[in-house]
Amino acid sequence: MSRADATKARILQAATDEFAAYGIAGARVDRIAKAASANKNLIYVYFCGKEQLFDAVLDAHVTHGLDSVPFTPDDLPGYAGRIFDYCTEHPEVIRLATWHRLERADLDLTGGASPAREAKLEALAAVQKKNGLGADFSPEELLTFVLGIALAWNPSNVAGLPATVGTGAEDRRRAVVEAVRHLL
Amino acid sequence: MSRADATKARILQAATDEFAAYGIAGARVDRIAKAASANKNLIYVYFCGKEQLFDAVLDAHVTHGLDSVPFTPDDLPGYAGRIFDYCTEHPEVIRLATWHRLERADLDLTGGASPAREAKLEALAAVQKKNGLGADFSPEELLTFVLGIALAWNPSNVAGLPATVGTGAEDRRRAVVEAVRHLL
Repeated sequence: MSRADATKARILQAATDEFAAYGIAGARVDRIAKAASANKNLIYVYFCGKEQLFDAVLDAHVTHGLDSVPFTPDDLPGYAGRIFDYCTEHPEVIRLATWHRLERADLDLTGGASPAREAKLEALAAVQKKNGLGADFSPEELLTFVLGIALAWNPSNVAGLPATVGTGAEDRRRAVVEAVRHLL
Repeated sequence: MSRADATKARILQAATDEFAAYGIAGARVDRIAKAASANKNLIYVYFCGKEQLFDAVLDAHVTHGLDSVPFTPDDLPGYAGRIFDYCTEHPEVIRLATWHRLERADLDLTGGASPAREAKLEALAAVQKKNGLGADFSPEELLTFVLGIALAWNPSNVAGLPATVGTGAEDRRRAVVEAVRHLL
């Protein structure tokens, strides 16, 4: 790794922590620079500005993280369990995605209808056609509820609860898988 | 209404719009003062500061709004439908609650385990004991998933979609009620 790449990596890591904690408006570029042991100007040179730095962080963690959890349309309870695991292991990811929803909703003209989502809907439609899975729901409805259930406990969610309150992660995971099984 | 009460009401309304749009860190007290046609100092006199003003707004809209949607433990699909309706009619409420989750999580020592939530869990446990409703889940699990499903479409949610993308509100509501029926 070149020295520039190493600096960029340190900036991205520091920016992940800062944005996950404070969001875009609340984040401070000088705190990121200090945590990354990098010159503040380098952040502007490499990433143009705070908003673009947020986009880079989001892309790294949501597009290449959450979206890459293997999607198994013929095993939606298993998929919900894996989404639950991913978010338990990476609490910062749902916080980043939620800040994005709140702070950049007006800029996201697709409204979250990403190519990754479209591919999942298409795969789901094919499985539904083949075996009548979850026939009471459209692919869009199924995917929305599977994710809604998998993320329902998440503390960033309005109905969520932190891991320190109520049941432990193992019980929560079991309940998520069971709930998606009921859905189908 | 006294003149002071009228000013307070205008400040609360302007603060609702500002906090729903920008969150706590992003909100500007002078924008709130301008929108409320009030002197900025009065905001500090009446509400102490920006954080306390946010708490007042949250209390008005979440505690006395979302929490007051009639809870019917023996008709959870109906409850989910009403929560869906409330959030469709008041898009600002879930935004406010979500900002609160993101920006004040460290201050909320109860982690969202409010007296209103406790009362719902108790009522749910009584119904489950009586008629075996949703016997595969604890009251906490049921309530979490019912809310997770009712709010799954909400654009503030990671898996949500704005009303302009995909199916309309009527189809979404039907699917929410049906999904909770499957859960039980």
